[in-house]
Amino acid sequence: MTRTRTVAELAEYLGGVVQGDGTTLISSLAPLETADATALTFLANPKYAGKVAETSAGAVLMAPGGERHGRTAIEVANPYLCFAKLLTLFYTTPHLPLGTLPAANVSETAQVGANTTIYPGACIGQNVVVGDRTVIYPGAVLYDDVVIGSNCIIHANAVVRERCRIGNNCVLQPGAVIGSDGFGYAPDGASYYPIPQIGIVVLDDGVEIGANSCIDRAAIEVTRIGRGTKLDNLVQIAHNCLIGEDCMIVSQVGISGSAKIGNHVTLAGQVGVAGHLTIGDNVLVGAQSGVPSSLPANAAYSGTPTMPHKEWLKSVMVVPRLPEMKKTLSSLEKRVAELEALLKQNRLEN
Amino acid sequence: MTRTRTVAELAEYLGGVVQGDGTTLISSLAPLETADATALTFLANPKYAGKVAETSAGAVLMAPGGERHGRTAIEVANPYLCFAKLLTLFYTTPHLPLGTLPAANVSETAQVGANTTIYPGACIGQNVVVGDRTVIYPGAVLYDDVVIGSNCIIHANAVVRERCRIGNNCVLQPGAVIGSDGFGYAPDGASYYPIPQIGIVVLDDGVEIGANSCIDRAAIEVTRIGRGTKLDNLVQIAHNCLIGEDCMIVSQVGISGSAKIGNHVTLAGQVGVAGHLTIGDNVLVGAQSGVPSSLPANAAYSGTPTMPHKEWLKSVMVVPRLPEMKKTLSSLEKRVAELEALLKQNRLEN
Amino acid sequence: MTRTRTVAELAEYLGGVVQGDGTTLISSLAPLETADATALTFLANPKYAGKVAETSAGAVLMAPGGERHGRTAIEVANPYLCFAKLLTLFYTTPHLPLGTLPAANVSETAQVGANTTIYPGACIGQNVVVGDRTVIYPGAVLYDDVVIGSNCIIHANAVVRERCRIGNNCVLQPGAVIGSDGFGYAPDGASYYPIPQIGIVVLDDGVEIGANSCIDRAAIEVTRIGRGTKLDNLVQIAHNCLIGEDCMIVSQVGISGSAKIGNHVTLAGQVGVAGHLTIGDNVLVGAQSGVPSSLPANAAYSGTPTMPHKEWLKSVMVVPRLPEMKKTLSSLEKRVAELEALLKQNRLEN
Repeated sequence: MTRTRTVAELAEYLGGVVQGDGTTLISSLAPLETADATALTFLANPKYAGKVAETSAGAVLMAPGGERHGRTAIEVANPYLCFAKLLTLFYTTPHLPLGTLPAANVSETAQVGANTTIYPGACIGQNVVVGDRTVIYPGAVLYDDVVIGSNCIIHANAVVRERCRIGNNCVLQPGAVIGSDGFGYAPDGASYYPIPQIGIVVLDDGVEIGANSCIDRAAIEVTRIGRGTKLDNLVQIAHNCLIGEDCMIVSQVGISGSAKIGNHVTLAGQVGVAGHLTIGDNVLVGAQSGVPSSLPANAAYSGTPTMPHKEWLKSVMVVPRLPEMKKTLSSLEKRVAELEALLKQNRLEN
Repeated sequence: MTRTRTVAELAEYLGGVVQGDGTTLISSLAPLETADATALTFLANPKYAGKVAETSAGAVLMAPGGERHGRTAIEVANPYLCFAKLLTLFYTTPHLPLGTLPAANVSETAQVGANTTIYPGACIGQNVVVGDRTVIYPGAVLYDDVVIGSNCIIHANAVVRERCRIGNNCVLQPGAVIGSDGFGYAPDGASYYPIPQIGIVVLDDGVEIGANSCIDRAAIEVTRIGRGTKLDNLVQIAHNCLIGEDCMIVSQVGISGSAKIGNHVTLAGQVGVAGHLTIGDNVLVGAQSGVPSSLPANAAYSGTPTMPHKEWLKSVMVVPRLPEMKKTLSSLEKRVAELEALLKQNRLEN
Repeated sequence: MTRTRTVAELAEYLGGVVQGDGTTLISSLAPLETADATALTFLANPKYAGKVAETSAGAVLMAPGGERHGRTAIEVANPYLCFAKLLTLFYTTPHLPLGTLPAANVSETAQVGANTTIYPGACIGQNVVVGDRTVIYPGAVLYDDVVIGSNCIIHANAVVRERCRIGNNCVLQPGAVIGSDGFGYAPDGASYYPIPQIGIVVLDDGVEIGANSCIDRAAIEVTRIGRGTKLDNLVQIAHNCLIGEDCMIVSQVGISGSAKIGNHVTLAGQVGVAGHLTIGDNVLVGAQSGVPSSLPANAAYSGTPTMPHKEWLKSVMVVPRLPEMKKTLSSLEKRVAELEALLKQNRLEN
């Protein structure tokens, strides 16, 4: 799968600057510790700068101006990002378009773009539109009137329900469900009447949805996931949520209905978010936290209910001390009562 | 999809009473603020009664005797419920029965009712019974000896394992799993021997199961979900649970084995319930709570472990104050010790 | 399905010793309370030893030397384990190999072993290897280059992505996903660039994965689940995790990337584990706990963040008392200030 390239070629590919011998041949990528003379490595964290002196790597990706200890280097602004791009270049193979394979169930009214692959067992409903170079794996199901953009990967057994729209460069991992009915019921005595969920889900460009994650369609209007936002596995997004751009929603997070999440928000694993609230841009919520109400932008929060992250760190450190504190408190009560009694007696005696 | 109807027609459909002009034509439904003259709106919350004066709606659904500010109204006991029913009437299309489509895999021994639709890619095992008007979407799999009632919707890639029984008017959202093996193992030295899970799952009438939710089959006997109970997405119900009627189990809740949940219980998102306990009727458990032991009926609880909801609200308000309380406590200890020393000295001096 | 056997036959099957009448005929299995004369029952917990006197069972599985009150008994070292083995013997039917059924999509380059069953709608990619006696249910999808061992059960709509390897005697419940892309992104300004996840997942022999659980493939190298480990439903295992042997991972647990879990570890329901940490052998973590850092072996922990389980039990008992403690603390502050003032005054007066 890999192919040998010169350091100069790689620098050109990345828009970086060669320091040292651009003719060095690179055929693999590896960490500083394990790289050999045919491997390129990277220095992202200044903490490890000393390891550059000791690495056996043929070349090092590093920030401009770093000490390269005589090594051949490619200087780039963001070495970690460039290393990820080289991982893609070296170790992944572009999907060859295979067309619509036998045993794929594609409706006659569906419009399938150029250079796509539709695998056996995939089911594509009436009037569905599938963009160019998109791949639909076995068992994936697109209900009627779905629109999928170009360069998408719809993995096995993912489901997109009727009328939902998926942008370009999106990925659905296996088992992801887009457009399930929102959990909306009107009380009818002790019972519940299902409120029809007639809205849709829209995923903007570059959205990725983890395995077995679920995004409910809106009651009316739209549940929306903004451009570039990534969802991990087993995430729940309820109806009418509006999630901003470039968010990271880690595994097993649950977001209740009509929540509005800003741009570049990170929700760590197992966080729960209540409905009808707003989380500001650039917010970071710590793992397992429960967000009961809106959170102002540009800050970190933790706990159930959430508080500023640093306060939470201090508070939870006290929790294991609570039994001791309770004992101390009881003892102090007694001692103070004794002091009060003594003083009262003193006064009487005086 | 929508069709124009008169206010009088709609009132008759709902069993309501017209106040004003029953010949008004209605072709859509909308909130108070955005409704125009062809739309019907609703007033459910008395807080918004004033908005009836300002709405442009052609007619208002409201409780009997409300101030209608000269608007045409349909008086009904439960305006929100009736609005939901009209959403269904106006905006949803009954599923047209398509029969068993080519590329559906239906066993020859299966009995499929009248006016059903079995989509391509659905798999129906030996001796399965499917009721009238039920719809089975692509990729749904019914193992041998499954029974599905009438008017059910089995969405794409849902799975019902062997011998499980699903009542009438049930909905399985995409990816729901009914009848997976319960998590039961007998210790065998350091290893675990899987205890065969030979029971089944029974869903009573009107049960709805969210996307990618899982209900394990009983070890022996039955895991049962009572009539009208609704499960949101990504919910886990372990083996031998008995869930009552008209419960609301919100997303990502997990219920451990052999738990018994009463009727009309609400478990909010991400709640965890331990096994072999009983939750009484009409209980409400707050989001992310952990229920370690039985909960008496007709009350609200929160926290891990759960306590009465109001106590929890007061307790968690103290948590951010813990560091300060700890400091105060230390300082008080010192001050009391000083007072004690002083008094001892006083006594000696006297 | 069941067949009558003598007590002597069952004792031989289990390697146990008959006490009493080995010719007694057994045709079913039941608990102590409900067993009749044709049923065998078991005594595992000494607490219930008295019930042996009252049971109507035809025979009792029990530890050697127990008081059998004149009943026929089979003495075995582990009565509960043996009862589970008899449940398998009496109530489960070996899967009859049906071969590759029509409408199964099996690549011509796949190698399928002897006595397998591949159901309609299953999809098996290029160069896949499937071992003997393995069963692949409808809708299950094996991507290219997957290897599955012998005696495995791959339930409906489970997915195994490219190059992942599954040992012998493994079970994937419906909807399980093995080898989804790890959640790894390199920041690129405000956006995120997906780091290619080029590693795989390896499940060792005897691993069982619950319904809709997800195991991410490694970024590079391997995400591994050790021999005999069992995962419940809706569990998340992130990329590069190394899980030991004979672990029990209960429903809705989430384990972050590169965590290393020892052997015989139990993580109770909804536990969250941070990344890049180590959990020692034989650790037990209580339900809903959050593990932020490594945990030493051979101990029980609970809470978020985790603390020793017994400390946690004491600490959470104090939480409902916090409002009262806060009040007491305020009142003590006042009383101490008063005492200080009084003493100061006393001193001045003296």
